[in-house]
Amino acid sequence: MSLLDDVELIDHHCHGIVRMDLDRAGFESMLCEADGPGRWHGSLFDTHVGLGIRRWCAPLLGLPSLAPADDYLAARHQLGVDEVNRRLISSLPTRKFLIDTGFQPESLTSPSELAALAGGVGEEIVRLEQVAEHVATSTSAARFADDFRAELSRRCANAVGVKSVAAYRVGLRLDPARPTDGEVTDAAGRLLRAVESGAAARVADPVLTRFLIWSGADLGMPVQFHVGYGDADVDLADCDPLLLTPMIRALGELDVPVMLLHNYPFHRHAGYLAQVFDHVFVDVGLALHNVGPGAPGVLAELLELAPFGSVLFSSDAFGLPELYVVGTTVFQRSLAGYLEAGVADEAWTSEDARRFATGICRGNARRAYRLEDS
Amino acid sequence: MSLLDDVELIDHHCHGIVRMDLDRAGFESMLCEADGPGRWHGSLFDTHVGLGIRRWCAPLLGLPSLAPADDYLAARHQLGVDEVNRRLISSLPTRKFLIDTGFQPESLTSPSELAALAGGVGEEIVRLEQVAEHVATSTSAARFADDFRAELSRRCANAVGVKSVAAYRVGLRLDPARPTDGEVTDAAGRLLRAVESGAAARVADPVLTRFLIWSGADLGMPVQFHVGYGDADVDLADCDPLLLTPMIRALGELDVPVMLLHNYPFHRHAGYLAQVFDHVFVDVGLALHNVGPGAPGVLAELLELAPFGSVLFSSDAFGLPELYVVGTTVFQRSLAGYLEAGVADEAWTSEDARRFATGICRGNARRAYRLEDS
Amino acid sequence: MSLLDDVELIDHHCHGIVRMDLDRAGFESMLCEADGPGRWHGSLFDTHVGLGIRRWCAPLLGLPSLAPADDYLAARHQLGVDEVNRRLISSLPTRKFLIDTGFQPESLTSPSELAALAGGVGEEIVRLEQVAEHVATSTSAARFADDFRAELSRRCANAVGVKSVAAYRVGLRLDPARPTDGEVTDAAGRLLRAVESGAAARVADPVLTRFLIWSGADLGMPVQFHVGYGDADVDLADCDPLLLTPMIRALGELDVPVMLLHNYPFHRHAGYLAQVFDHVFVDVGLALHNVGPGAPGVLAELLELAPFGSVLFSSDAFGLPELYVVGTTVFQRSLAGYLEAGVADEAWTSEDARRFATGICRGNARRAYRLEDS
Repeated sequence: MSLLDDVELIDHHCHGIVRMDLDRAGFESMLCEADGPGRWHGSLFDTHVGLGIRRWCAPLLGLPSLAPADDYLAARHQLGVDEVNRRLISSLPTRKFLIDTGFQPESLTSPSELAALAGGVGEEIVRLEQVAEHVATSTSAARFADDFRAELSRRCANAVGVKSVAAYRVGLRLDPARPTDGEVTDAAGRLLRAVESGAAARVADPVLTRFLIWSGADLGMPVQFHVGYGDADVDLADCDPLLLTPMIRALGELDVPVMLLHNYPFHRHAGYLAQVFDHVFVDVGLALHNVGPGAPGVLAELLELAPFGSVLFSSDAFGLPELYVVGTTVFQRSLAGYLEAGVADEAWTSEDARRFATGICRGNARRAYRLEDS
Repeated sequence: MSLLDDVELIDHHCHGIVRMDLDRAGFESMLCEADGPGRWHGSLFDTHVGLGIRRWCAPLLGLPSLAPADDYLAARHQLGVDEVNRRLISSLPTRKFLIDTGFQPESLTSPSELAALAGGVGEEIVRLEQVAEHVATSTSAARFADDFRAELSRRCANAVGVKSVAAYRVGLRLDPARPTDGEVTDAAGRLLRAVESGAAARVADPVLTRFLIWSGADLGMPVQFHVGYGDADVDLADCDPLLLTPMIRALGELDVPVMLLHNYPFHRHAGYLAQVFDHVFVDVGLALHNVGPGAPGVLAELLELAPFGSVLFSSDAFGLPELYVVGTTVFQRSLAGYLEAGVADEAWTSEDARRFATGICRGNARRAYRLEDS
Repeated sequence: MSLLDDVELIDHHCHGIVRMDLDRAGFESMLCEADGPGRWHGSLFDTHVGLGIRRWCAPLLGLPSLAPADDYLAARHQLGVDEVNRRLISSLPTRKFLIDTGFQPESLTSPSELAALAGGVGEEIVRLEQVAEHVATSTSAARFADDFRAELSRRCANAVGVKSVAAYRVGLRLDPARPTDGEVTDAAGRLLRAVESGAAARVADPVLTRFLIWSGADLGMPVQFHVGYGDADVDLADCDPLLLTPMIRALGELDVPVMLLHNYPFHRHAGYLAQVFDHVFVDVGLALHNVGPGAPGVLAELLELAPFGSVLFSSDAFGLPELYVVGTTVFQRSLAGYLEAGVADEAWTSEDARRFATGICRGNARRAYRLEDS
């Protein structure tokens, strides 16, 4: 039995799953951070996440572990998406899902739909840019700041945190200063003029990005940041969490928790920030199920400097229920292996290990997001 | 028996070897990326590459493994450079060598000479800067662009790729835009005026660097980039492959493969690029034989995000045949250990492992460089 | 028995320890680089350094290994600070301590006091900024340069090296050029005017920082640099040792050794610099006792490129004698494990391992700091 066998999980950053059948190209395009299979690299099943699906999901569909990709996709098709979603999600030890609802919500399950499949509870994380882009369709530059704050407040009434994708829009080298009202009005004007001339509303402006972050923090909400690893749209060189140091320092004055998501390949940098800033929490979600045999090492590197009280679990699963299974399994195995090795090496006691496990799986998230009933 | 024992290799980035005897200082100066032994650190045999030579090359010269450096150099001198070159190179499992002929070609073996020692085939990689610096000695600023394109086309007729040492000249933070003809003429003028006033022709100008890269890509040639680890001439802070992201994105429009060479200590960054860009191929050549016991870990870190279809083998051996032996041996041991551990851990099947091994050793290079007969 | 059991150590970068009793909050605030325990992360004993103290120091106070933190603090209080300091410091295998006396010297033991507890010898490292800030209280802008040089020369007469905390003040992206006298006078004027208007003297100016470094090097003193890992005052993004490359190149002309301290999480970058620059020495002090089970891996990553002749030992212990015990123990275990694994794997001989061990523990520091009698 593993140390974690009876420890329930809170998945503090994840997404809905798709409700429709996918062909092979569609499935491969959701496996990892590549847009999809191309002419040069061959099938994206020849990645660690592809192997993880063959390893851990195939048995849940009635196939042998490591069944070929073709067999897996055939079984998936035969069972149908609803049955596959049910089988995979109901296998999870997760009891609470903090779901980012800001990306493609219309094609994905809602927090309550997803949580119901697991017999758990879904909570919402509000994506700041999505709210701003919604507000931008029906306001003026002068009213933007107030309208955004009102809408964010309304949306956060039933949410447990907010999320910024500054990394995707302007990078993490953010001026920590609150923008003035005049600056926000000017920046909103530029956004609204772009919308009026037919562009999609897209917040990719440092002033608005900073305004969004401060508005979330002013509501007392924990603020999640996408950091590091993402798809080809991101300029990873601008996504080192160390670039966020001045903003982290500034947000410390409000004493709201800051969550650094993913972090790979800068996860040691994130661990450093978690040690020196008491309000910083960190995870290596998304990375773990993508790096395969490297997962125990990546988690261990995060845990080099990050205090045990600062580390969270997330799958960052998106679209495919398989990513929940693989992300959660790899996390559990990595953490259990790490903690058990420490007991065997006499680096800590089994009581310590149990305390660390409970904290990382659930307790730290409860404290950080004030989930008193979890 | 190892998984790789009967897998032939394509070494997609390597150099010629010296044809003359070397004294101890000369030999040590070619061991690693230090200029040579100095007053502070002692003998450069006390590095991993020095230890690798004592370990794997000494037996090929009739000495016990890990014979002292003095004994090794004495045996090397006694056998003579031709016999040493023959013994070491003929021991390689490599059947095709893609040789960068652009650095000190006059003092090194040609591709066919080197390949003949191994009973294999040599192909040429054309170094862009070397061609430009040759052209610069006999053209005008106005004719430079056309003359360079003509000469490059001529040189590439029998080559399989081109290489940029932008990292050594201007760093990798390259504007991806094609320079205009006027910009190239201006930059060529500056270069030619420097040559006229007695300087050696040396392309160290961002405009020319970008022009060279685009010219190679326009010919449909795979483009290799020196990335990361090099000697004291490089400013390693400017050699992170993430800095090349905009150029990689732009070259993607031509669908020519981009090869990121070496990459250490930024090899995880390179693995990320290989995952999100289908036309990117990566290796950890040069690094592997320098990092010694760290080699399996470095290769494993590259393989965290890089799809199995995106990874290549190179030794980056230069000058000393020993570097071929150590680089190839360390690579084979590291890859075999990685793949066999995955089979033992049930992360993949032995059929998967065999497919990955064949791809990384040979198949990916065949596809990327269109080496149909390999 | 370990390879290192009878190898005496030189701790080339460390500090004095406190002479007064500490309450729990005071003790926790000195454990790691967090300012102290906060509301979010829980007790800082739940860090690797906290666990290391329970593991290795508890038995020295008569408690079982891994005794609870409360028991440890109670025993510490009962024995009293003098007895605790004596027990812990006298347990060290270190015979020479190179002590940075430039931070809070009045509240800490002097080099000779500390060394006496260990039955060893204390040497002084002079912190450049501390000397400058002392001089600034009693000079004029025009006399600053000469007065600083005179005072530094006086202080260095009985010291073995100097240290720069440029990382904390202006970051490591330093222009390598020597500032002119006029530039120094101007910068000193700015500093003195700030002091006159009531500010504490604090050198945080690139010109003065460069002047200090060159002044130390001109005296032929080895120059230590804080690099990487530190507390929340540091902007870690500006502390990558690669940013120091131009300054390292420039200092190479004077042939004074440059010591890169700590380096984590950029320790592979430091290893690269140690390979390509013969006058660069490196360590992973401070990091090792903070990263716990990660310590062997961190040391191994430093040793990937750093020649065996370039690596030093430091604890970077500050304030708590516990940090000496944990830092030294973790270093010895990590190095012994690394070298013994290499012997077992036939990567080097046991004679090689012994030579490397002696060099890293003592010989390299003797050579670099010219400690002929050590």
